[in-house]
Amino acid sequence: MGDTLNSTDLMRGAPPPADRQVTLANWRLPPFNRWGFQNVRQILPTAPISRGGAAALPLAADRHPIDGIAFAGPDGGEWTVARMLAETWTDGLVVLRGGRVVAEHYDNGQRPETPHLVFSVSKSFTGALAGIAAGSGQLDPDAPVTRYIPEATGSAYGDCAVRHVLDMTVGTSFEESYLDPAGDYVRYRVATGWNPPGDPSWIADMRGFLLTLKRDRKPHGETFHYVSPNSDLLGWILERATGERLADLMSRALWSRLGAESDAEITVDRLGAARTAGGISVTLRDLARLGETMRRGGKAGNAQVIPAAWVADILGKGDRAAWARGEMAELLPGGSYRSQWYSLNNASGAFCAIGIHGQWIYVDPAAEVVIAKQSSQPLPVDDATDHLLLRGFDAIARALAG
Amino acid sequence: MGDTLNSTDLMRGAPPPADRQVTLANWRLPPFNRWGFQNVRQILPTAPISRGGAAALPLAADRHPIDGIAFAGPDGGEWTVARMLAETWTDGLVVLRGGRVVAEHYDNGQRPETPHLVFSVSKSFTGALAGIAAGSGQLDPDAPVTRYIPEATGSAYGDCAVRHVLDMTVGTSFEESYLDPAGDYVRYRVATGWNPPGDPSWIADMRGFLLTLKRDRKPHGETFHYVSPNSDLLGWILERATGERLADLMSRALWSRLGAESDAEITVDRLGAARTAGGISVTLRDLARLGETMRRGGKAGNAQVIPAAWVADILGKGDRAAWARGEMAELLPGGSYRSQWYSLNNASGAFCAIGIHGQWIYVDPAAEVVIAKQSSQPLPVDDATDHLLLRGFDAIARALAG
Repeated sequence: MGDTLNSTDLMRGAPPPADRQVTLANWRLPPFNRWGFQNVRQILPTAPISRGGAAALPLAADRHPIDGIAFAGPDGGEWTVARMLAETWTDGLVVLRGGRVVAEHYDNGQRPETPHLVFSVSKSFTGALAGIAAGSGQLDPDAPVTRYIPEATGSAYGDCAVRHVLDMTVGTSFEESYLDPAGDYVRYRVATGWNPPGDPSWIADMRGFLLTLKRDRKPHGETFHYVSPNSDLLGWILERATGERLADLMSRALWSRLGAESDAEITVDRLGAARTAGGISVTLRDLARLGETMRRGGKAGNAQVIPAAWVADILGKGDRAAWARGEMAELLPGGSYRSQWYSLNNASGAFCAIGIHGQWIYVDPAAEVVIAKQSSQPLPVDDATDHLLLRGFDAIARALAG
Repeated sequence: MGDTLNSTDLMRGAPPPADRQVTLANWRLPPFNRWGFQNVRQILPTAPISRGGAAALPLAADRHPIDGIAFAGPDGGEWTVARMLAETWTDGLVVLRGGRVVAEHYDNGQRPETPHLVFSVSKSFTGALAGIAAGSGQLDPDAPVTRYIPEATGSAYGDCAVRHVLDMTVGTSFEESYLDPAGDYVRYRVATGWNPPGDPSWIADMRGFLLTLKRDRKPHGETFHYVSPNSDLLGWILERATGERLADLMSRALWSRLGAESDAEITVDRLGAARTAGGISVTLRDLARLGETMRRGGKAGNAQVIPAAWVADILGKGDRAAWARGEMAELLPGGSYRSQWYSLNNASGAFCAIGIHGQWIYVDPAAEVVIAKQSSQPLPVDDATDHLLLRGFDAIARALAG
């Protein structure tokens, strides 16, 4: 990986050389993403998700070498954790066992205090927040979406339930094509403010765009169909259900209660709508804290932050048949997706949150292990790397459980 | 003032009603500025100015009622401080005496932890930072600008010194016309990213724009001429002189040493250039901390943060003749401007930092009083209000000195 630029080579100099400028037009493309993912707020408008004034929950050290842990890659080749980290564009990796820090690693200029974009792990934050709103009675997961968003009548969301949105089983023709230069996804990115303005006829705000999603012929609830706009809609539903702006809600109900050590942030569109599908940036250790809270059934310290029943529902109620029918079945054979979290449904009960370009929370309850990884992989989706990482994470958990 | 919207009426609802949306197109206009000035990062890209990990310098309380302090307004009418605050779109006011909090007042939804845009008080932050760079030998205030910015050759800055930039005595035809819809200032605002994109032929980055400023016939150094781009250029000079990005430099050299209790932030343009002329947002108490540090000759706690000689130079070396020839002479008769700070040159040695729409740091050394005010006045410049506030601040200082 030595033939490319890293974050400390980019945006240096006043002005930076033209070929090392990170802008709204290139920030998610390699090599610009190496700086972009650590500096989202310098590219886009963002709302702060305050940690509030409480003390951070300490993460005590329990150091254990992990670099030499060996495992067989999906290609059958021999791998070590050190090689895995070196070859997967790692910006940061932290491993907790029983809530203590076994290993903590930074690269590419990232530091413990750097908020790093976690892309679709943001969905899992939002799924946890939905659980809190459900627990307080503000959100009914079984209600029709139109109870909260009457404007959704006539769209793909006009006849589905919040549950379908939570579990990514909405029947819609929307295609999540990250590399298609001309499809739905490009119009979506322009609407979210993540790409420069596009055709003037396009919808220029995110929620306006969500209402343009169309039904397809599949019944809701039958097939896992990964549609990021669903998770943005979930954020909108939460605002309507609670009456709070999303960033403020997440601060009050989740971030200020998690023991976070840093403020988080979320990108907002031109009307202030928070991109709950992918716009959250957090520090590495705070990412791990969310995983640890999930591992502990929703508890952070002594506080029940996320309802235990919601966490249990995520881990036990995923629909494997819907997953098997879906487009990502090959990633996690036998897996499921529930309330914006993935379950492996393996012997150790592992579950995870995944974001494009290499963002992960991986929890192995049997081993009491939580792994958080932030990366700047050049491609948004890279199946081979995903399979490699899943094997590596499992190897770390097995080694630490031993 | 009850006939208008305040910050808590704006950007509520998902989406907010069309007439209550704050966007890049309206955020500095009333009533949208009432929300905009407290939420700049949700409108524009910003770089964080970290306070670092040190403890905040405590501001002990020494409460004293100020609301009833009476004074004669510039119109000859009777005023009280309470009426002054109520009628000048106050978002926050804090008064220190001997470094202790005499009074602290918030309105319009602002809170102690809210970063509020301080507009051209940002210049005074940058002037303090220039003093730190001068003290460390990295910046020579008497050097030609072209030593740091060779690209400035041929522009208004091609034959002037850093000192002229610091003191706003550059001879340039640039006109600071906040309300002119078609002049230099509009092109400047588009270049800084503060306005939506303009004519495609316009320069789309701030520093590119700075190089288009033209000389006029006035010799440099002779006449005070308020030109915000000078202060943006000063930020550029500091980046070149130190090799650090502006926000990182300000964090390391000033913000992390001032005892600040909150991170600050600064708007950045599409190439990451920090708007040192006006883009800093800070909390009210941290704004007062900068004033208190200046009052104490550059010391925060026991640390000499800004060189004492630089502060003394600001207070003693302002060119009153240049000021008297300039376009703001009527605001502070007998005043002066040095290194981005205003001096009143009155009996108590008062000096101040001023930003449009009602942002102030006012220091009265004789009374050991520091006043910080953040506001969302509807007009950028309002001479009558400025005169009123100057009288009110003086009245507060006199009352507390008594």
